[in-house]
Amino acid sequence: MRIESADVVVCNPGRNFVTLILRTSDGVVGIGDATLNGRELAVASYLKDHVVPMLIGRDASRIEDTWQYLYRGVYWRRGPITMAAIAAVDMALWDIKGKSAGMPVHELLGGRSRETIRAYGHAHGRDVEELIDSVHARRAQGFDAVRVQVGVPGMGNGYGVAEGRYEPARLGGVPSEEVWDTGRYLRYLPTVFERLRGEFGDELDLLHDVHHRLTPIQAAQLGRALEQYRPFWLEDMTTAENQESFRLIREHTTVPLATGETFNSIVDYLTLVPEQLIDYIRSAVTHAGGLTGLRRILDFGAVYQIKSAIHGPTDISPIGMAAAIHLDTVHHAFGIQEYMQHDAIVSEVFRADFAFADGCFRPGAGAGLGVTFDEEAAARFPYAAASLPVNRLLDGTVHDW
Amino acid sequence: MRIESADVVVCNPGRNFVTLILRTSDGVVGIGDATLNGRELAVASYLKDHVVPMLIGRDASRIEDTWQYLYRGVYWRRGPITMAAIAAVDMALWDIKGKSAGMPVHELLGGRSRETIRAYGHAHGRDVEELIDSVHARRAQGFDAVRVQVGVPGMGNGYGVAEGRYEPARLGGVPSEEVWDTGRYLRYLPTVFERLRGEFGDELDLLHDVHHRLTPIQAAQLGRALEQYRPFWLEDMTTAENQESFRLIREHTTVPLATGETFNSIVDYLTLVPEQLIDYIRSAVTHAGGLTGLRRILDFGAVYQIKSAIHGPTDISPIGMAAAIHLDTVHHAFGIQEYMQHDAIVSEVFRADFAFADGCFRPGAGAGLGVTFDEEAAARFPYAAASLPVNRLLDGTVHDW
Amino acid sequence: MRIESADVVVCNPGRNFVTLILRTSDGVVGIGDATLNGRELAVASYLKDHVVPMLIGRDASRIEDTWQYLYRGVYWRRGPITMAAIAAVDMALWDIKGKSAGMPVHELLGGRSRETIRAYGHAHGRDVEELIDSVHARRAQGFDAVRVQVGVPGMGNGYGVAEGRYEPARLGGVPSEEVWDTGRYLRYLPTVFERLRGEFGDELDLLHDVHHRLTPIQAAQLGRALEQYRPFWLEDMTTAENQESFRLIREHTTVPLATGETFNSIVDYLTLVPEQLIDYIRSAVTHAGGLTGLRRILDFGAVYQIKSAIHGPTDISPIGMAAAIHLDTVHHAFGIQEYMQHDAIVSEVFRADFAFADGCFRPGAGAGLGVTFDEEAAARFPYAAASLPVNRLLDGTVHDW
Amino acid sequence: MRIESADVVVCNPGRNFVTLILRTSDGVVGIGDATLNGRELAVASYLKDHVVPMLIGRDASRIEDTWQYLYRGVYWRRGPITMAAIAAVDMALWDIKGKSAGMPVHELLGGRSRETIRAYGHAHGRDVEELIDSVHARRAQGFDAVRVQVGVPGMGNGYGVAEGRYEPARLGGVPSEEVWDTGRYLRYLPTVFERLRGEFGDELDLLHDVHHRLTPIQAAQLGRALEQYRPFWLEDMTTAENQESFRLIREHTTVPLATGETFNSIVDYLTLVPEQLIDYIRSAVTHAGGLTGLRRILDFGAVYQIKSAIHGPTDISPIGMAAAIHLDTVHHAFGIQEYMQHDAIVSEVFRADFAFADGCFRPGAGAGLGVTFDEEAAARFPYAAASLPVNRLLDGTVHDW
Repeated sequence: MRIESADVVVCNPGRNFVTLILRTSDGVVGIGDATLNGRELAVASYLKDHVVPMLIGRDASRIEDTWQYLYRGVYWRRGPITMAAIAAVDMALWDIKGKSAGMPVHELLGGRSRETIRAYGHAHGRDVEELIDSVHARRAQGFDAVRVQVGVPGMGNGYGVAEGRYEPARLGGVPSEEVWDTGRYLRYLPTVFERLRGEFGDELDLLHDVHHRLTPIQAAQLGRALEQYRPFWLEDMTTAENQESFRLIREHTTVPLATGETFNSIVDYLTLVPEQLIDYIRSAVTHAGGLTGLRRILDFGAVYQIKSAIHGPTDISPIGMAAAIHLDTVHHAFGIQEYMQHDAIVSEVFRADFAFADGCFRPGAGAGLGVTFDEEAAARFPYAAASLPVNRLLDGTVHDW
Repeated sequence: MRIESADVVVCNPGRNFVTLILRTSDGVVGIGDATLNGRELAVASYLKDHVVPMLIGRDASRIEDTWQYLYRGVYWRRGPITMAAIAAVDMALWDIKGKSAGMPVHELLGGRSRETIRAYGHAHGRDVEELIDSVHARRAQGFDAVRVQVGVPGMGNGYGVAEGRYEPARLGGVPSEEVWDTGRYLRYLPTVFERLRGEFGDELDLLHDVHHRLTPIQAAQLGRALEQYRPFWLEDMTTAENQESFRLIREHTTVPLATGETFNSIVDYLTLVPEQLIDYIRSAVTHAGGLTGLRRILDFGAVYQIKSAIHGPTDISPIGMAAAIHLDTVHHAFGIQEYMQHDAIVSEVFRADFAFADGCFRPGAGAGLGVTFDEEAAARFPYAAASLPVNRLLDGTVHDW
Repeated sequence: MRIESADVVVCNPGRNFVTLILRTSDGVVGIGDATLNGRELAVASYLKDHVVPMLIGRDASRIEDTWQYLYRGVYWRRGPITMAAIAAVDMALWDIKGKSAGMPVHELLGGRSRETIRAYGHAHGRDVEELIDSVHARRAQGFDAVRVQVGVPGMGNGYGVAEGRYEPARLGGVPSEEVWDTGRYLRYLPTVFERLRGEFGDELDLLHDVHHRLTPIQAAQLGRALEQYRPFWLEDMTTAENQESFRLIREHTTVPLATGETFNSIVDYLTLVPEQLIDYIRSAVTHAGGLTGLRRILDFGAVYQIKSAIHGPTDISPIGMAAAIHLDTVHHAFGIQEYMQHDAIVSEVFRADFAFADGCFRPGAGAGLGVTFDEEAAARFPYAAASLPVNRLLDGTVHDW
Repeated sequence: MRIESADVVVCNPGRNFVTLILRTSDGVVGIGDATLNGRELAVASYLKDHVVPMLIGRDASRIEDTWQYLYRGVYWRRGPITMAAIAAVDMALWDIKGKSAGMPVHELLGGRSRETIRAYGHAHGRDVEELIDSVHARRAQGFDAVRVQVGVPGMGNGYGVAEGRYEPARLGGVPSEEVWDTGRYLRYLPTVFERLRGEFGDELDLLHDVHHRLTPIQAAQLGRALEQYRPFWLEDMTTAENQESFRLIREHTTVPLATGETFNSIVDYLTLVPEQLIDYIRSAVTHAGGLTGLRRILDFGAVYQIKSAIHGPTDISPIGMAAAIHLDTVHHAFGIQEYMQHDAIVSEVFRADFAFADGCFRPGAGAGLGVTFDEEAAARFPYAAASLPVNRLLDGTVHDW
């Protein structure tokens, strides 16, 4: 079964998505998600201009060989563009394999390990009152684990916060700029957690995303300050380019640590995992080389009792979400799944058969990934440049966003 | 699709094999190999008396859940008996999954990564002349990688050596006893390699199995003594219960190291792999928890550039060999496959669709594992107790065999 | 003095036990315990089908040689089945040796190091009130160290808890399934300890068994939360297949740590002991290779000031308990002895001469182990399949029990 | 001084190059090299579609701020595409800065540390005789350090080898496939070095590029085999995604080690440098984030006495080469500079003022980088897809190229 055609579609039903469509000589269609927030066209070019010519005529059943061919064959390995492109090919090939076998992808990966996939939702507020309302809204949707982000007084909306719906990428090719003050944040956040525990009691799982803004010792301080409020995790406490940074955090606090949404390779975990410096692996199927890539990362983590928490913001298309849910369904070391929820309009282009109810996902029973992509509908939503914000300290220094 | 029946058959077509047969409500049959040389009935009891009652009525598609259920559910984890039993269940479930999908198992695991599976054969001689004849015989079969074992003068046949065909397990419930003298072996072996290089030149890959008989420092000495003859590997240089023993060997020699045929879990590699103390992982599908278990071990090794060399002696049944060949076909970090070759009579009971020619295997195209088990034929070959030898030093001390 | 016969008896006076009976040419009888909860018949087969033929005719005085012969001679070392079988042989040979010398086994091992053997008892309750009653009952028996297990609200009885008498293995070949929620447990347990200290003051030693259910960071959190209540120890905080997991716990808390009841070899302690990651060694004589095997583990621990706390649940038969008490009597690094107390009916089959009073054991003065096994009585209590529970998370994932 | 326009030009004067052209409000033009062999259009898209909108209107003098803005602002850091794009912006801004100051870039970086920049050239041969001729040709050009690559008998031309001029990227969007056999290579290479030392004596510096094809232990073996021939270095002995792989090589051989041409960030050196596992840093200005990025890597190396050896193959445009030579001129820890030499036709598009004679470069005196880019000429040489080869083992497995 050969790959006969490969198309790359960039569409914007409310936000941008990059989709790869493979068609085989047997008429099977496989689709994959290659969306990289704010760099969509570069991934599309990587696929169209460089990868597609290599795919035409290849045996669609050779998923592992194709993965290695694209990973090793490019010479310039890893990186977000390359790995998102490989991820899309990998997802599309697993989709084809599932359809060929007449099985949902989770069956090929080993079958169900659980009945439901617990998800956490996003709550945010420009101040604590708005945040509390937002948490109540998530609970009403059935979530019993909620990520809480709040505006720090005097610092604007802050990370993860907006009036109404939050979408990190904003229209336009030039990023908006935000302002950051670590001191205010460190002083303010414990009061927010105290308030939340007062409002919601002890049972609700509260997650928080620091979004790379602290140094390791600041992260250690925050971990110790919040321990009494038992956060489910603190995420991305510091930039993890240098994985050793987490050693310092880990020495000082037992707060559970999550990281990895910006990672794209198992190599990014080579120190974090064997030294048990984190508790949750946060990479996306879409960004970490597809099911083939991410499954290996989760297996690596499982040796050290590290759990999965696959990245699931709106910039993961329903294809990438479906792939995540198939992997969540199978992998023993499942921890939790992020679910940021797409706008309804997204379903005009992507129709997925997984279900969400009571704070949990259930995988669909359709063959392959269980997602259809409507190319005609996609054509009605052309790409529009959008960018993630840039962050600056009060004195104007570029800071980590 | 539920498991309706589970049978355990111990048969002896020339040697003992333990086979698990699962039948589903849909009429699909899956088979697995649980042979553990010299402890066959204990594994059969483990399966029949303890595991089978848990299998009846289970969903046959839930391979991962069943693996974890048997591994964690028993409370008393790991060990050769437990893991061989789990391996057989795992193989049978992958066989069923492949038949349900209408695909050979290697397709479910990711598809072909190579055309042929290089194998190494066994040569042996009671003296060097016999060994040279034996190597010539292997080369005539197409092998270009040959394991060489030779009797050490004054020490009897020695490990891996017999007059005519070599079979490690010998009939009878009481082990034969062999004699060992490390000094003679260390002095003699380099002369054998020198002779072999003189006879066969530089291109033939020569492997040798020390079979756990040296201390780490003796192993380091042997490695350095043989380096000039470029062995493909030296195997099981010392007992690896304490994985740290390999540090000492590794510091002193660049000879490639292989180990793991007695291992049954990824835990047995937790020091060896991340510290890169070995070059080849030698576990068997049959003994290391099946395809599910061994794939994870190979993935773990691949992070550190360690290659596979799946165990393939005669005590791995054709089912276990087929499973190995499916995994060899897919896994990127394939190194080499052992092939000791069964007696022809074995094929009266087991018929496998993989092919061997020119020193290489090719996987079959049949759905599932591609092996049929003839229960009627098996009934003609009842179990007969057989034992691996015990090894003693000249003074009578029990030594590692 | 040769071994003339070797019999394996599986009986169920209220629960299953596996007993090995050796008889020598001199008419001396030695008995050993090979009970492995939920896998009894596999051990019995291992002994009967594979080990017994090797024992007949052997010199019964060669305990060390026989141990090494069975350990190294099997080729497939370690694991719960193998090591329980070796343990039974080892115990029976020490029993014979003692009877031959006319001395209790503790005399052969070096003689008494102490007058009494402090034991801890088990208390449990479906809620705190029941637990408090249970602790009072243990104190009334003389125990001044009590293990406390309690049902977590909303989670069923929980580990170690039952209405009335607690027995982990339940009749039937298919395990019952329990449900686990780590969050509830972590929130609840500190309140239990606070209540217990309020009820019983500071002097009673309180032990708690986590039974492998936490990840390392959760274990660290629990350790810190309970430190203020000065637990005697927290046991099996996480699965210790990867011994390095204990490093993370140890960094964050000074709560004493115990582990090892599922271990079977000194190899399982190779990281835990030299890195001083634990304070108590919890292996059983029955599961860790007998007196010969466990004595070496305790010696290894003693180098690092780690104490003994030999496993003593109801699945250790009175033979295994007697062996433990002999070892406790001699070993300098004795810490404490678990005592779960058998049902009275057990004594219809096994009659032991050790005594228990005032929370302490005293070894018997009879030659050998000091236990008699009544084969006729045993025949009245045939084996009945029983299983340890399997544990699942709320979403259905297999969890560690 | 604002950036008024930013253009990306992909041209192919004999091979593909990606060039960024910035023009400021003051009419200053700065150019940068963003060539990534075989993925040119993806980098061009990254620049045009995502980076250029952010550049228009920016203060051209803020080199550091712009570097951090592009590096941190993208959120998805590192990787070959991203870092090549950043490199081009960085080079163009330094070019502008130099022109604004009326100084060559090396003056802004700190001024000359040396008079000449020693370079090594490339020699290759399909067999040793051709190689020897090629080395003679390099010596005739004044090189006293020559990289030697040779076809391995039976394996085709091999890495770095062609009839006539060698250019790794070959026309067409589908890679050619090469075949690799590690055993033959390891046996053959020492004979080549022996022959070369016989032909050229001891004083000529010989370099060799293994191009990632060995496992760590094979690399250690090769290092030991070649030590007696005193190679100047062995390069890219193994893939360094896992930097720890170099530990094993380093333990066994004192042969100098070079690596890094595929690296794009200082993070790729975080283990290699502080553990002193290499002797030469081989990253390109073009691929490692420009002068700003690479200078920091060289500074890091200098702390540990590791020298520079900037990548200089034909896929580095004359702009990238000029940038390298400016950095070589200033940096104290300079080691050597690679010089593969472009075809003459390249100078129809790029005109550089650095000079090469007697095996050495001398930087030009022109302001900025000293390179002009002729857009009209470039337009005559449109992009043509070209690909680096893919490497496969004899059995078809994808191998590292």
